[in-house]
Amino acid sequence: MSALSSQPYKGTRDYYPADKRIQNYIFATWRSVSERFGYEEYGAPTLEPLEVYAAKSGQELANEQTYSFTDRGGRVVAIRPEMTPSVSRMVAARRQELPYPARLYSIANFMRYERPQRGREREFWQLNVDIFGVDEIAAEAEIITMADNILKSFGAQDQDFVIKINNRKLINFMMAQYLGLDSAGAQSMVKLFDRKDKIAESDFIDQARGILADDADDGVDKIKLLLSAKTMADLPAEIRNSSVVQEVQELFTLLERNDVKSAVFDITLMRGLDYYTGTVFEVFDIHPDNNRSLFGGGRYDGLVGLFGAEPISAVGMAPGGTMLENFLQVHNLLPELQSATDVYIIPLGDNGKEASKLARDLRDAGINAELDITNRKLDRQIKTAIKKNIPYMLFIGENEVTTEFYTIKDTASLNEQKLSFDDVVSLASSRHSL
Amino acid sequence: MSALSSQPYKGTRDYYPADKRIQNYIFATWRSVSERFGYEEYGAPTLEPLEVYAAKSGQELANEQTYSFTDRGGRVVAIRPEMTPSVSRMVAARRQELPYPARLYSIANFMRYERPQRGREREFWQLNVDIFGVDEIAAEAEIITMADNILKSFGAQDQDFVIKINNRKLINFMMAQYLGLDSAGAQSMVKLFDRKDKIAESDFIDQARGILADDADDGVDKIKLLLSAKTMADLPAEIRNSSVVQEVQELFTLLERNDVKSAVFDITLMRGLDYYTGTVFEVFDIHPDNNRSLFGGGRYDGLVGLFGAEPISAVGMAPGGTMLENFLQVHNLLPELQSATDVYIIPLGDNGKEASKLARDLRDAGINAELDITNRKLDRQIKTAIKKNIPYMLFIGENEVTTEFYTIKDTASLNEQKLSFDDVVSLASSRHSL
Repeated sequence: MSALSSQPYKGTRDYYPADKRIQNYIFATWRSVSERFGYEEYGAPTLEPLEVYAAKSGQELANEQTYSFTDRGGRVVAIRPEMTPSVSRMVAARRQELPYPARLYSIANFMRYERPQRGREREFWQLNVDIFGVDEIAAEAEIITMADNILKSFGAQDQDFVIKINNRKLINFMMAQYLGLDSAGAQSMVKLFDRKDKIAESDFIDQARGILADDADDGVDKIKLLLSAKTMADLPAEIRNSSVVQEVQELFTLLERNDVKSAVFDITLMRGLDYYTGTVFEVFDIHPDNNRSLFGGGRYDGLVGLFGAEPISAVGMAPGGTMLENFLQVHNLLPELQSATDVYIIPLGDNGKEASKLARDLRDAGINAELDITNRKLDRQIKTAIKKNIPYMLFIGENEVTTEFYTIKDTASLNEQKLSFDDVVSLASSRHSL
Repeated sequence: MSALSSQPYKGTRDYYPADKRIQNYIFATWRSVSERFGYEEYGAPTLEPLEVYAAKSGQELANEQTYSFTDRGGRVVAIRPEMTPSVSRMVAARRQELPYPARLYSIANFMRYERPQRGREREFWQLNVDIFGVDEIAAEAEIITMADNILKSFGAQDQDFVIKINNRKLINFMMAQYLGLDSAGAQSMVKLFDRKDKIAESDFIDQARGILADDADDGVDKIKLLLSAKTMADLPAEIRNSSVVQEVQELFTLLERNDVKSAVFDITLMRGLDYYTGTVFEVFDIHPDNNRSLFGGGRYDGLVGLFGAEPISAVGMAPGGTMLENFLQVHNLLPELQSATDVYIIPLGDNGKEASKLARDLRDAGINAELDITNRKLDRQIKTAIKKNIPYMLFIGENEVTTEFYTIKDTASLNEQKLSFDDVVSLASSRHSL
């Protein structure tokens, strides 16, 4: 038999300890912000029936990007490409029993069959944060405040990112009343706006003209007017006076109260997924080397109702791990992360038994202690400790066993001390409280 | 369109917050024991090429139990049914760069197409702990000590479980030299021993007779002798004198040194997976209501070499989440787990703005604070706090805003106090250090 490949499946990543430390740092920050706001963790299955995504996630996602297959029992299933349908299903299943507002979060992996590229992998990790049962705009204000707080918790400044906000009801008004499009035309126009930043302005206008068809010149002028609007006040009066604008304004008032300074209104923001019904938002990195969307969210009041339960309002968002890692890299915000192991114990000579006892005592005292059990030469054991980036090496030989004072060496500075057991514990555990 | 089902995919579980708290408690204990021993966390992809499992995991697992399919690019893949091949692949890919011994752990989900039953789900979570690069039996001693420590960390006593230990080399010797079986016969006999506790003894003997064929009476007598052996000393001399027995004895010496009291030798223990090459072990619950295998592990020195790298020795184990949850339940070891949320803030009257400010201040002070933003009647807000099992309710009205003293109520006892902001913080954070 020829050798099996040692490479991971295309578009997925192996997380070696150094990579996993970064991921854990991101997860811990997500968890901390979510729980600060009173959100509770849940978990959902990896597989869902494919039809769940066909219903509302959008055709491209369901038909072209899912990992779908027929199981051994004839069920057509998909590896979840996103969490929103799953959490909506879970809420529907316990519609009566759950306490409201239900504030839920999860940290989970997803798969989409896409062309792998920077920040986009076929398997990726996301935080999902959702609030169910609040009709008021205060729900959007809370979720967007959390988006802002997550980036700030990583050390980002207000000027490092922008949160663009729009509203699906406003988009619908704009497409139907303002531009006079029918529903097929509106859908095409939404998709075109979604691609706006990826194509040349002249192409954008040409394609808009194609969608508008009747009275295209007037329509193009109206679109240009929209594109030039920098704030809500710049919008044409017929849009500015729509009742939805009040809702958007209230949201900005609440965000200001919550000290969110990076939020801007952007009438061209659409968000691809079909299930959004109100506010939509998207967070963008504005660093020149990573000028791209980081994550987004919005209100999706119709999804729980698809699962046979009485509808319930919902607002959520889903920051992704790799996007955030790229953000932290370009903004120089990734901290130095050491091993979780505190001490590497190196037995000198024939003291394996005593070293083993010492390891046990250190562990009982709350120290993460790795014991070298290889009987290799001393220099090779030391090299292992250094390569693993473990802060301290502890040597135990005849002398240490007799005196009960241990030689402990700082792996970075190579400073050496002789310490009692208790002092070893104090030194090694001091880093835990950092 | 008819409503979509709100039930999870067959054999999988939705983890609502109360379920997820239990799972998180189990994960945290796994993590803590793994890191105490100096193991570092890694992560691997959900999908692997199917051939990875066909090679060494055993035919039943690869052919009948995998969730396998062909991706949109024509690759035949499987949702991982276990971690051992993935972590072996990762070690093979960085064979030269990794520091040895490499001590690695992960907490991840797996899928197997099996008939769902108590403690066995189609999607399940496992801790995987593996050590690479140690030929000596000290590696087995460490892994089995960790198995013991994990159960002890959950509060289990020595008499709650038993760790059965055997060795594949001894099994091979027993099958070939002692029973005189060829390799096909040996394989059938191993499978029969694996099922021993699930079938009647007479069936076991009948089937053994079928496998033995020539000189079956003598073979059956030899097997009966094996089954009656309670310790290594009871084994027939020709087995007892094999060099492997020395290795097993050394392992027991090391386990005794590590204070592992639940380990016993059991020559009938086989372990189903094909890749084991030396020590195998399995942990059994001995509670009458849950008398079953909890998890196991062993040495698999040949797996890394399959991925084109120079072979490297390996020992590992994989405790599962649901098995452990059942164990904790029957032994009454599951602690009461409260919400991670400390305080539920209830605004009285028109003080939403001040309540929002207070929530922000509490969060900045490290308190997990949920804010009611629904404008519902007071009694409904109180009911939500109780239903969510949040330890404290904090009321903020006109009076609280003026005096800066807040009414805080213990949700369980309904005791009420008026406290300053700092005292609210002290009270609410006191539970963090439990």
